Amino acid sequence: MLRHDPTSIAFASDNYAGVHPEVMAALVEANGGDVVAYGEDPYTAALRESLSRTLSAPVAVYPTFNGTGANVVALQAMLPRWGAVIAAESAHINTDEGGAPERMGGVKILTVPTPDGKLTPELVDRQAWGWGFEHRAQPLVVSLTQSTELGTCYTPREMRALADHAHERGMRLHVDGARLANAAAHLGCDLAAISSGAGVDVLSLGGTKNGAMGAEAVVVLDDEAAPGMTYVRKLSMQLASKMRFISAQLLALYDGDLWLRNASHANAMATRLRTHLVTAIESGQAPGLAFTQDTQANALFATLPAAAAARVRERFRFYDWDEARGEVRWMCSFQTTAEQVDAMAQEVIAALAGSPR
Amino acid sequence: MLRHDPTSIAFASDNYAGVHPEVMAALVEANGGDVVAYGEDPYTAALRESLSRTLSAPVAVYPTFNGTGANVVALQAMLPRWGAVIAAESAHINTDEGGAPERMGGVKILTVPTPDGKLTPELVDRQAWGWGFEHRAQPLVVSLTQSTELGTCYTPREMRALADHAHERGMRLHVDGARLANAAAHLGCDLAAISSGAGVDVLSLGGTKNGAMGAEAVVVLDDEAAPGMTYVRKLSMQLASKMRFISAQLLALYDGDLWLRNASHANAMATRLRTHLVTAIESGQAPGLAFTQDTQANALFATLPAAAAARVRERFRFYDWDEARGEVRWMCSFQTTAEQVDAMAQEVIAALAGSPR
Amino acid sequence: MLRHDPTSIAFASDNYAGVHPEVMAALVEANGGDVVAYGEDPYTAALRESLSRTLSAPVAVYPTFNGTGANVVALQAMLPRWGAVIAAESAHINTDEGGAPERMGGVKILTVPTPDGKLTPELVDRQAWGWGFEHRAQPLVVSLTQSTELGTCYTPREMRALADHAHERGMRLHVDGARLANAAAHLGCDLAAISSGAGVDVLSLGGTKNGAMGAEAVVVLDDEAAPGMTYVRKLSMQLASKMRFISAQLLALYDGDLWLRNASHANAMATRLRTHLVTAIESGQAPGLAFTQDTQANALFATLPAAAAARVRERFRFYDWDEARGEVRWMCSFQTTAEQVDAMAQEVIAALAGSPR
Amino acid sequence: MLRHDPTSIAFASDNYAGVHPEVMAALVEANGGDVVAYGEDPYTAALRESLSRTLSAPVAVYPTFNGTGANVVALQAMLPRWGAVIAAESAHINTDEGGAPERMGGVKILTVPTPDGKLTPELVDRQAWGWGFEHRAQPLVVSLTQSTELGTCYTPREMRALADHAHERGMRLHVDGARLANAAAHLGCDLAAISSGAGVDVLSLGGTKNGAMGAEAVVVLDDEAAPGMTYVRKLSMQLASKMRFISAQLLALYDGDLWLRNASHANAMATRLRTHLVTAIESGQAPGLAFTQDTQANALFATLPAAAAARVRERFRFYDWDEARGEVRWMCSFQTTAEQVDAMAQEVIAALAGSPR
Repeated sequence: MLRHDPTSIAFASDNYAGVHPEVMAALVEANGGDVVAYGEDPYTAALRESLSRTLSAPVAVYPTFNGTGANVVALQAMLPRWGAVIAAESAHINTDEGGAPERMGGVKILTVPTPDGKLTPELVDRQAWGWGFEHRAQPLVVSLTQSTELGTCYTPREMRALADHAHERGMRLHVDGARLANAAAHLGCDLAAISSGAGVDVLSLGGTKNGAMGAEAVVVLDDEAAPGMTYVRKLSMQLASKMRFISAQLLALYDGDLWLRNASHANAMATRLRTHLVTAIESGQAPGLAFTQDTQANALFATLPAAAAARVRERFRFYDWDEARGEVRWMCSFQTTAEQVDAMAQEVIAALAGSPR
Repeated sequence: MLRHDPTSIAFASDNYAGVHPEVMAALVEANGGDVVAYGEDPYTAALRESLSRTLSAPVAVYPTFNGTGANVVALQAMLPRWGAVIAAESAHINTDEGGAPERMGGVKILTVPTPDGKLTPELVDRQAWGWGFEHRAQPLVVSLTQSTELGTCYTPREMRALADHAHERGMRLHVDGARLANAAAHLGCDLAAISSGAGVDVLSLGGTKNGAMGAEAVVVLDDEAAPGMTYVRKLSMQLASKMRFISAQLLALYDGDLWLRNASHANAMATRLRTHLVTAIESGQAPGLAFTQDTQANALFATLPAAAAARVRERFRFYDWDEARGEVRWMCSFQTTAEQVDAMAQEVIAALAGSPR
Repeated sequence: MLRHDPTSIAFASDNYAGVHPEVMAALVEANGGDVVAYGEDPYTAALRESLSRTLSAPVAVYPTFNGTGANVVALQAMLPRWGAVIAAESAHINTDEGGAPERMGGVKILTVPTPDGKLTPELVDRQAWGWGFEHRAQPLVVSLTQSTELGTCYTPREMRALADHAHERGMRLHVDGARLANAAAHLGCDLAAISSGAGVDVLSLGGTKNGAMGAEAVVVLDDEAAPGMTYVRKLSMQLASKMRFISAQLLALYDGDLWLRNASHANAMATRLRTHLVTAIESGQAPGLAFTQDTQANALFATLPAAAAARVRERFRFYDWDEARGEVRWMCSFQTTAEQVDAMAQEVIAALAGSPR
Repeated sequence: MLRHDPTSIAFASDNYAGVHPEVMAALVEANGGDVVAYGEDPYTAALRESLSRTLSAPVAVYPTFNGTGANVVALQAMLPRWGAVIAAESAHINTDEGGAPERMGGVKILTVPTPDGKLTPELVDRQAWGWGFEHRAQPLVVSLTQSTELGTCYTPREMRALADHAHERGMRLHVDGARLANAAAHLGCDLAAISSGAGVDVLSLGGTKNGAMGAEAVVVLDDEAAPGMTYVRKLSMQLASKMRFISAQLLALYDGDLWLRNASHANAMATRLRTHLVTAIESGQAPGLAFTQDTQANALFATLPAAAAARVRERFRFYDWDEARGEVRWMCSFQTTAEQVDAMAQEVIAALAGSPR
């Protein structure tokens, strides 16, 4: 029974979107018959081979249910009981996982404020000290998000510099890649360039935000970086019994170019929205609107007067990012259309003008 | 790309099976457009209403990814930091969750050996003591599995007795209902009779093993029994962003009679297999084969000589249950066919006879 | 067998010191005979009565082994599984407990940078938001340290403002009072003024740093603020079997004025050292020395050229506080003498002058 | 102020007792002056050397506050996040630590029922299986208690058999030695024979129950068996700041023969009580009294009619062990006197006779 409006649109999050038809087709195809549960199935095996090619490295792949799960499983496997992870204050693991890393994994997060969501070696060094000092949670992993929670991207060179910096200090590099595809699409590079090529040890690879129904994976690029992954995934409640259906989604995205098509589209829609609004700002049509971050991936961050925000919300759902500052986030997905973007831009401009609808 | 044989069969587990076509159709229908993420969608709302009707109680429903997740979320919400749960030694939470209740939830499990997987008030009392004694993890929840890990079922009256017994002692009743449908099908009762009607406080309601792709839920029948459920689900990494697709699966199963059709079929196939083999035993055609548990739901437990087991395995995959005793488990699912069952029975008999294939 | 030099001195920490003779005498007196273990003894009962008088409130007292233990027990009891605590970035719970709050208690710490170690309502508000939002660890406790890790003190009025601010928002106030006595001595107030009188809900009351051998306690001022304390203390490995000997230490300190004599002396020694060095700075005798924090309790923080620090260390042990900035910490205890302080001041001045020793 | 009766006696637990005068003297001697905190002091260094000699192995020693702390620290260091420990159902870690191993350490305990509190290789094998199977918490440590919670002792040969059995299967051997001294005293062997000589990897060495004020230690016999011990102790809230006072207690006990004198005395008192009562039983003077365990260390277990137990309790405090069976535990300590034992025996006999007092 259809219970929603399939033409409804929002700029709230890329996880408001549905499932890309090619992913849905893959699910249908993977159905039928019995296959071994818990990952010993041909789809999961194929995923490993496929990602090893795509990432140019013999990776181990551990599908999980969601991004928080992938991150917390990865960090637990990468860290001893006394380990800590250095991350940006705005990192998803610090702000949006309900404390899961700490509560489920006992992981201490050592945070660094960073205006654009990106770490640098210098920022890492604010927390990268105290090894051997028993009173301090030991910083043994650096975690960065690509693309970041603020819609910005690390270049492969920036990632490599962080990886080298971490490795020189005996730390490992974890990447929260819930939106890795959006970063690659923006950077114009392949996925290998921002994973194996950049010195990443363990990657949380996203699917859900880029057209999957619900599929992420911990991808281990350096075997020694994450011992006991199978056990950790299981005890973290992230082991799917009918795993073929998670692997099939990731295959649909990554064993081909769907990941790129979807992410490029989402990014392009964000850029389109920004272009409309920047034009409006420059022509004085958008009083009170100001962008607060670069738009590199599929998210826009801007300050907007409250009255205008309220009016736009009557038509398009989106989130406050920093209510105190009047900052909002608009996000595009693989299924956002140019028409929706144009309507949204128009609505924002109209709201700022205070013109009647 | 098709990567498996959709005609393959096994008697290993009901989670080797695929997705029932009606569930798959529901997933396709729920697709398209943007809906609010994380459960504020019309499918999740409908699920709550539907289950409230089905269970004859105004329940709160918290979809989760898998059964271990549902159990560990439920137990955490039901227990303070110092609480313990009384369960059968053979309970899934004790034997098959990789220690997730202890590691993720800090939950102490107080176990009781029980030959048929079922608790009784007397068995509960072996662990139900020591309240107020600070050295002892405080027994505050009794958890039973319906149907049990050994394929047996509690009658509604037996469940009620356990609920009353628990409640009289200030404890709550949790039910691991990963196969609740199979129990109802066996008992010939509705789902209300073995949930709200039996005094259950919190239920882990299964979908995956009964034809879903991956969908379970914590169903809270008594609001006061599980405070903070939304937070606990999130911090336990069990909050799906595109939740409509989990809720849609559960709706496909439970908002109608698919749950019953699937479970009845699986149970019937198990009974058919047992009937064949009992006939063989009685006629002396199955030397060395002996059933070790009643077959009430969809599982059979039997001892089988190792050589025969090895031969049957060449054709049908299944698991050892207790290798030392030579005990195996055979399990049927919604998609097991009568032909497969007949072939399996024939194979077992042939293997026991040592006849050439 | 004597294995150390009982005349040795240091300015490293107040926990380098030994045990005050009156505390040792109390331990000797509490010896002999059998008393009930685990707190059902007359010393623990007397402690409760005594602290209820001293703090002008009917408190519950839970002796623990050490300060980290007291803090982590208190925070666990004060917080549900989904709770978070707001604290200064420099708080002991955040920087010096090896991640114990996160790992042992699953407690998320929401930190705020603060130059002098003190929180204000405005600083609290940077993290006090997001209640009801399931993705965010719920801020339900504010924790302040009195005196702070930077040697500063809150006035009773400042504490009350924080308590009111917290309570108005549904949060509780925890005080890490490992050096509460030093704060009271500086403020010239009684202990009630900075506990019950200031709206504190739960207090970690220190003894070890003020002349005890090893004795702290969680003091619960509002019963509803910390349910299950006995269980939480036990399961946190902080329940002493021969508790009489911990309670006897706290009685020796707090059932009389030893706490005040010891803390006043330690503070006075810190002030004496500061006075010497300020005089030197003002007369140009201490080039490169600059104090970085007020000296209110028993600690001094100053920047000092590395060469001078190294020379002083040949005679007096002390710690770097922020190595990058060249900041050191000097700390006095109940047993520091005026002669030692004078010698230390002289040594610092000589080292800065580069004069031969 | 004296708040207890130093002549009071009980048969409740060896931790009702006070501190042996030689231990108290050692505490007084260790006082005075500043020494480095957190274990970098001469007493802790001496303890390491002393125990290395005593245990005939180059051990690392990590003093802790209490036995639960020692056990939970040891098990965490010995086990990865996915590890489990095999222990007797009656083990202290399973029954008397408030769930601390599970809650604080995430340690799964795989229990085996055993009538006399002792494990055997055969009993271990009931749980020693499933390595590599991700659904099962991985059994990687065997933990035994010496002397056991039931007052029985393992011979060195029995311990060695368990160590070999564990090691052959890739598991480590932990010993909860809260009463190791009582075992050695009973066995007539030195401490090396039941530690390094028996293949023990990590030992929780007790002091508190044998005349210390509060002092235990994790003793690591095989360095590779417990990585990260310093961090784990700290994050488990078991790192004492004024550690010299814990180490001094252990030195007083173990750097000489005080451990043996105290334990031998406690054992002898238990034997004396048993002898009196066995004589009474044999002469028909103790109707209803029956011993349920051998008395090898310092505890006695017996069934006793409730009325008699109640009467004896008017004079001597002791605990029920299994209330349902009417089983009680009587325990002697280093300070129990022969007169007290004789009075206790007389009281029990009188109570059983129902004679007026």
